[in-house]
Amino acid sequence: MANSEKLSRRIFLANAGKLAAGAAAGAAGLSLVTQGAVASAADSPEWPWPYKKLDPEAVYWKANAGYYQGGCSFGAFNALVTEAGSPYTSIPAGMMRFGEGGVSGWGSHCGALIGSSAFIGLVHKDPAVYSKLINELTLWYTEELGSGSPLCHVSVTEWSKANGVKVESQERKDRCARLTGEVAKKAVLLLNAQADNQFQAAVGPRAAVVACLNCHGKTGMENVRNGVLQDCTTCHGTNVHQTQTQ
Amino acid sequence: MANSEKLSRRIFLANAGKLAAGAAAGAAGLSLVTQGAVASAADSPEWPWPYKKLDPEAVYWKANAGYYQGGCSFGAFNALVTEAGSPYTSIPAGMMRFGEGGVSGWGSHCGALIGSSAFIGLVHKDPAVYSKLINELTLWYTEELGSGSPLCHVSVTEWSKANGVKVESQERKDRCARLTGEVAKKAVLLLNAQADNQFQAAVGPRAAVVACLNCHGKTGMENVRNGVLQDCTTCHGTNVHQTQTQ
Repeated sequence: MANSEKLSRRIFLANAGKLAAGAAAGAAGLSLVTQGAVASAADSPEWPWPYKKLDPEAVYWKANAGYYQGGCSFGAFNALVTEAGSPYTSIPAGMMRFGEGGVSGWGSHCGALIGSSAFIGLVHKDPAVYSKLINELTLWYTEELGSGSPLCHVSVTEWSKANGVKVESQERKDRCARLTGEVAKKAVLLLNAQADNQFQAAVGPRAAVVACLNCHGKTGMENVRNGVLQDCTTCHGTNVHQTQTQ
Repeated sequence: MANSEKLSRRIFLANAGKLAAGAAAGAAGLSLVTQGAVASAADSPEWPWPYKKLDPEAVYWKANAGYYQGGCSFGAFNALVTEAGSPYTSIPAGMMRFGEGGVSGWGSHCGALIGSSAFIGLVHKDPAVYSKLINELTLWYTEELGSGSPLCHVSVTEWSKANGVKVESQERKDRCARLTGEVAKKAVLLLNAQADNQFQAAVGPRAAVVACLNCHGKTGMENVRNGVLQDCTTCHGTNVHQTQTQ
């Protein structure tokens, strides 16, 4: 950790000058952003964009097929924007290819979740609304797969292990195509429910993360952000306080 | 793991019918996607979009200020699209708010990376090009922070610990604002180098992940995808084969 701390401090210190300058030039910085927002509004229909309820099954099949064209993140996003039509189709769905394999293959956040979450972000501007929909989508994902994690690496490796196939097998790819369909479809079901004022959160965080946050969250030492909902034990194990491996 | 395997098999079996139907209806599924692609092209300038070199410092300050408006993912994306101008400004940058805190606060993939990677995905269509730029950006991030990980939770918690502050402190937020600026600026430096045909990868994967993939990657048991570049020890620890905690 010594090296890590050194680097962390370095980036902190290297930016100390910028921090002071930023505070001084706060007004100028914000006016730049305001200009940007105005330019954006002039070019595109005002955000958030209108949403008409979509057909979950149509989205499932289009997302499933789209996976084979441009990966999970593209597959989900492309299905959602093309089913929704204009103005959504003004965004090139190819932009979302970057999300494949947990962002460019890094095994990080599942691309199907990224593509679907981005679409939810077009439909809802209120953080309370888009957050509750994305949280529900992500919690559903972690429980449906049983991994407690939104990470591609965990999802792909655990599923492949459970089904006795290699991670680059056609079976695993076909599974991720189905998964892409299921995630995009679930996003539609949640958005449709919200459109009908019928949304109800059905999946809560696991007992493990609630217990961990009792000490590590806001009411405790506050070294983990409160928004974290994934099961801590996926990475930290169940006996982290005994072994201290990390 | 028994419960996890059961759930994994369930999603697999629950979709077996769909898999067969999907194979039968493959042509129909693909034609749907083609229709979508045509609709998208008609509504927006052909993707990828033209890129003129941007000013890295202007992007830094705009992204830094944008963080305080809509979080890290919005801050980075908004700075990049508004500096790039039309047609980039046709996308409401608010869409990217969802990425904040590692996707809606989950502590997963850093939102500043998501926003910057999405912009790279608008500029480059060739997977070989956008992947090499995103990989370099992400590797740079993991080394600059010293964590070996692109995850918000690791980055935020390690930095807060090293600097003796709480994760919800103003100091940590100001650090993430600076980080948002640095990541968006780095994306510009990489895109500018690519525009000049001067791009050269400077950061390689860590020895740990290379060693792990010798056995777990394509040449071995293939239970980890080869695109994974993050340091395995961040989550698995350095003695995973001894303790088997996970």
